[in-house]
Amino acid sequence: MTEKIRPLIWQGRALKLLDQRALPEKESYITCHTLEEVQKCIREMAVRGAPAIGVASAFALVLAAQKYIHDLNAKDGLKNGFSPSGLQNYLTLSGDALRATRPTAVNLSWAVERMLKKCRDLGAVSPETMLTAFEREAIHIFEEDLAANKKIGSFGAKLFAPNSNVLTHCNAGALATAGYGTALGVLRSAFRAGTIKHVYACETRPFLQGSRLTAWELQKEGIPFSIIVDSAAGYFMYKQEIRSVIVGADRVAANGDIANKIGTYALAVLAQANKLPFYVAAPFSSIDLSISSGEEIAVEERAPEEITTYKGTPLSPPGAQAKNPAFDITPANLITVLITEHGILPFPREKQLRRFVQQRGRKLG
Amino acid sequence: MTEKIRPLIWQGRALKLLDQRALPEKESYITCHTLEEVQKCIREMAVRGAPAIGVASAFALVLAAQKYIHDLNAKDGLKNGFSPSGLQNYLTLSGDALRATRPTAVNLSWAVERMLKKCRDLGAVSPETMLTAFEREAIHIFEEDLAANKKIGSFGAKLFAPNSNVLTHCNAGALATAGYGTALGVLRSAFRAGTIKHVYACETRPFLQGSRLTAWELQKEGIPFSIIVDSAAGYFMYKQEIRSVIVGADRVAANGDIANKIGTYALAVLAQANKLPFYVAAPFSSIDLSISSGEEIAVEERAPEEITTYKGTPLSPPGAQAKNPAFDITPANLITVLITEHGILPFPREKQLRRFVQQRGRKLG
Repeated sequence: MTEKIRPLIWQGRALKLLDQRALPEKESYITCHTLEEVQKCIREMAVRGAPAIGVASAFALVLAAQKYIHDLNAKDGLKNGFSPSGLQNYLTLSGDALRATRPTAVNLSWAVERMLKKCRDLGAVSPETMLTAFEREAIHIFEEDLAANKKIGSFGAKLFAPNSNVLTHCNAGALATAGYGTALGVLRSAFRAGTIKHVYACETRPFLQGSRLTAWELQKEGIPFSIIVDSAAGYFMYKQEIRSVIVGADRVAANGDIANKIGTYALAVLAQANKLPFYVAAPFSSIDLSISSGEEIAVEERAPEEITTYKGTPLSPPGAQAKNPAFDITPANLITVLITEHGILPFPREKQLRRFVQQRGRKLG
Repeated sequence: MTEKIRPLIWQGRALKLLDQRALPEKESYITCHTLEEVQKCIREMAVRGAPAIGVASAFALVLAAQKYIHDLNAKDGLKNGFSPSGLQNYLTLSGDALRATRPTAVNLSWAVERMLKKCRDLGAVSPETMLTAFEREAIHIFEEDLAANKKIGSFGAKLFAPNSNVLTHCNAGALATAGYGTALGVLRSAFRAGTIKHVYACETRPFLQGSRLTAWELQKEGIPFSIIVDSAAGYFMYKQEIRSVIVGADRVAANGDIANKIGTYALAVLAQANKLPFYVAAPFSSIDLSISSGEEIAVEERAPEEITTYKGTPLSPPGAQAKNPAFDITPANLITVLITEHGILPFPREKQLRRFVQQRGRKLG
């Protein structure tokens, strides 16, 4: 079932992106031949979800490298000798442009860094060798994300007792990643293990990732679920109908604070007030030790029209102002465990998190 | 300015209701000539807000009484002698039908009770005398609500320091009452007193009372505001951009628990977690000492389609389930003060609330 959801399809000379704005009505792909086209898809949320925009960015840089070398060829530049440092500079600028699209998630920045490092490491090689290796690196990022998700799923699935009623927010599913999901991947694995009774999906205003995307994935998977408005989560926790909460994370700071979709903080406070566990599932690449706490994470503000209109129809009087932060910060002390592909970290506070990264991070490049 | 917002207009033989589903695009009235028409408007939320549906129900009973007597007349029933007890029975059944439309708010039930009592108290009088006195009682309920709102406003306005940034949820404004508002009435009065800098209005899914109605009222009043998605309230509290919260109440139980629009509980928990005061503004008629705690309050569940579609457009995949509780319960221990037309009650817990009602309630009929 799951493998049928393919948010990103690499085609060698183009990246096909499942247009998530059109879901659930329409499953249509946008074919991107240039970095700029991928960038537009990220900015306009045709592709979204921290890991997915990381993978998309890696492929966008491959498209940029292909273009650079193609243009050089066209100008007979290759006859004058191909300069890897010229490509490196070009990709650095391309990477900066990508990073500017969505500042909050670290995965995009992480993928760009990793691709740039690959380019530098390759050193003085032929353009063909460079392109082949560069493309292979992006494919690795894609495949590693998929594998990481499945590991997150199998680690996380152990957290649930039989007949669990779990809440999730936004979409941290196949659509938000290379294809399996973090928080929703855990629910997928747990459901297959027979422990999930019912999933409550917050609709997740304003973009409705919950009612549009998570519901679509849960339905494909055959997992029983109910959509609720974001503000009803507390009600069901208070009644103990919801017994745990699981979300993804766009960035994990060194002290364990996380940035995630707006509304996550409220769910964490409500979980604590009702003595319910609050689980965070994220790949290792979401951990950013360069940022000491959540306060330093840039929270993206999106256009007010995402709130005051729906598909062009006004929802509020003309001229009404709105504030539209796309993310919020959940302090570490509200988080019960962090689930990664390298295992589960209980109480992910500063000391625990640094040690965890040190111990498990060695495998990483 | 305010007086321009007239959610209910009594015309002697008909009740005109401002259709709140059409706002803010269109200011159109529905003219109701029968109880059934008013009932439909309440059920479908053309008129909404606890005090407003209370007032509408009082007028609906006047329309029912007029119909009863008109029908008797037509059948020459009056020649056989008009029986007040026949009318009383008819109105009791009519009142039950009204009560069934929206079970959570007490004001509707309270208004029905008061009208039935009036009918009983009038005893054996002529049909004309009965109708005149009965209509006058409904007009009293309307006028008392308006006066109570203004008193709530002037008591509540004293709670704010200069330059206050306040959050409100749903619409507890002119539209939700006879014409001034409870929570929004307080903000109106406080703004006129110069202490409100900015109002944050939760959009209030699924019916969008915040972005459609509260924004419309704030704009008419010239109060600076921003609409936010419901799940962003915590973010702005955490950043201390919001410094207090004020909401209405559909019912106040004897122990001080309140029922109010879904999402109120979450805001109260978030206010407490961020050490911010949480104010509740409601007329005395919202206090229901017959109910010992919030657990006993019936929470209305509305149609899932209110969540899964918007004006006929699907927001989620076909067949997706949703749960749509229209209200939630906020326990008394999260409430800082209760603002009524008889003054401010700090820490409205059981003992304080009973004493308050005893002391101030004597004026009530």
